[in-house]
Amino acid sequence: MSSFDLTILGCSSATPTSFRNPTAQILNISERFFLIDCGEGTQMAMRRFKVKFSKINHIFISHLHGDHFFGLVGLLSSFHLLGRTNSLEVFGPKGLKEIVEIQFKYSDTRLRYQLNFIELDTTVSQTIFEDNKVEVKTIPLSHRIPCNGYLFMEKPLPKGLKKSKVQFYNIPIANLPGIKRGDDFITEEGKVISNADLTVDPPPPRSYAFCSDTIYLESIVPLIKGVDLLYHEATFMQDMQDRAKETYHSTTIDAANIALRAEAKKLVIGHYSARYRDLDPMLAEAKTVFPETELALDGKAFSVAQQEWRS
Amino acid sequence: MSSFDLTILGCSSATPTSFRNPTAQILNISERFFLIDCGEGTQMAMRRFKVKFSKINHIFISHLHGDHFFGLVGLLSSFHLLGRTNSLEVFGPKGLKEIVEIQFKYSDTRLRYQLNFIELDTTVSQTIFEDNKVEVKTIPLSHRIPCNGYLFMEKPLPKGLKKSKVQFYNIPIANLPGIKRGDDFITEEGKVISNADLTVDPPPPRSYAFCSDTIYLESIVPLIKGVDLLYHEATFMQDMQDRAKETYHSTTIDAANIALRAEAKKLVIGHYSARYRDLDPMLAEAKTVFPETELALDGKAFSVAQQEWRS
Repeated sequence: MSSFDLTILGCSSATPTSFRNPTAQILNISERFFLIDCGEGTQMAMRRFKVKFSKINHIFISHLHGDHFFGLVGLLSSFHLLGRTNSLEVFGPKGLKEIVEIQFKYSDTRLRYQLNFIELDTTVSQTIFEDNKVEVKTIPLSHRIPCNGYLFMEKPLPKGLKKSKVQFYNIPIANLPGIKRGDDFITEEGKVISNADLTVDPPPPRSYAFCSDTIYLESIVPLIKGVDLLYHEATFMQDMQDRAKETYHSTTIDAANIALRAEAKKLVIGHYSARYRDLDPMLAEAKTVFPETELALDGKAFSVAQQEWRS
Repeated sequence: MSSFDLTILGCSSATPTSFRNPTAQILNISERFFLIDCGEGTQMAMRRFKVKFSKINHIFISHLHGDHFFGLVGLLSSFHLLGRTNSLEVFGPKGLKEIVEIQFKYSDTRLRYQLNFIELDTTVSQTIFEDNKVEVKTIPLSHRIPCNGYLFMEKPLPKGLKKSKVQFYNIPIANLPGIKRGDDFITEEGKVISNADLTVDPPPPRSYAFCSDTIYLESIVPLIKGVDLLYHEATFMQDMQDRAKETYHSTTIDAANIALRAEAKKLVIGHYSARYRDLDPMLAEAKTVFPETELALDGKAFSVAQQEWRS
């Protein structure tokens, strides 16, 4: 069973509070550890929640408001001081590279590892990362400054072969890759054995969408359709919808409506305004629209279980 | 009794650890709250140790290594978000303004309060702040990048008048300011009443020197001579003196020797390398040279008591 686990390192908006860190999350897909946003104190939260520094090879920053990236330069600096040699990719909007580099210039820091910035166009959805197991796309959002979310998707697995059938029909090895991709098999006698008879379906690929920060934006729905786990900011409760609009943020009900329209399997809300000490009313309000809602809380983990192989 | 209290907000070097924050301190002199250095997470430490954000009007940064200033932009940003209107002075080396302003540029932050940067020449000792109660001077240090410490001194109080003697000699009000400054009084009959007969001496002014980070540097001794409270970095124990020299840091024994030569009343050591989990051996080592040594620890406070008025 390969992992697909999200851990919340911080879920506060704007300022850190005594009880919540600013935004940062760790997503573990098959032992790839993606750091998503990096508010001040993220490296301390990583220590607190036992995230191994050396496992992080990719960092995704949504936008350049401080509560989403003020912890980045400290983390990059600690990687250096702790002797990191593996290269690191940092994805984010234009400006991030300049901000980090000027700080390394004045501190006379020459990194011992390769640091690559990939500055993104936040206005279009693009594939920005891909390996044999995972693909990452951007989700254009609408905030006061350029901002995008990220969609993390497992790559589809090939179909599995029913070994007994392969033996029974004595299928040549050369045909197997095609059958895994969905081909039928035609025996020497010309009989068609349907692919469904020969294979089992893999578990469907799992996906996670991170949407922070944004005004209510229906254009993201097709991009995240059917997502297993959706994080959507909910800075305010619905009675503050005017304030939400003014500041280009969402309410609990906005987040729940996006989850509903996107047919998400589960919604996690976060990025709470510091005015909300007790979060239960926010959760209750979101659930009136989308019952499968949970609260982001510092240190809380959400796993998406892998489904069974199906014949 | 006016206050003269130092609170340690962080005492780690290089990287924050699970048990120590990077360098930051609050010095309260007569209800002026000076923030000295501002490593990542300082604003969280301020909340934890109940430091009121609104009380801070002056911030002093020693140098541009991240463990001394990565928390600054977050704190300045939180001041803004919390509605600060009072102006704020930030003292530090060249570069600080550029680093902060570029981050506010990309986040499109227009501060609602006046933020003044005073960029310092780290190579000479200068008075950089003065009001009716306090004077602050820089202490040039020798580190890998430009760096200075800070000396905080109470202004001397005027002498106090012995009211009974003022009445007895029927001294005119016009003469009193001069007597407070040390003048004798001459009666109409030409008799000289010595100043010592008419006045009481004020408590001597108290002082605090913050010396971080630096290689062992005897040239600071005359600048901090007789200081009540000396904070001096002690990154390493004496068996690592070569490493200390290489990195332009001090050992426990270096710090203690500076305290001894400066005839400091008390030494506080800090800025410990993360390799030292148990700090008792560091304290014991420093005490072999300077018995009046204490350890900086997150949240620990050091007060300098005001002495009595003396006739």
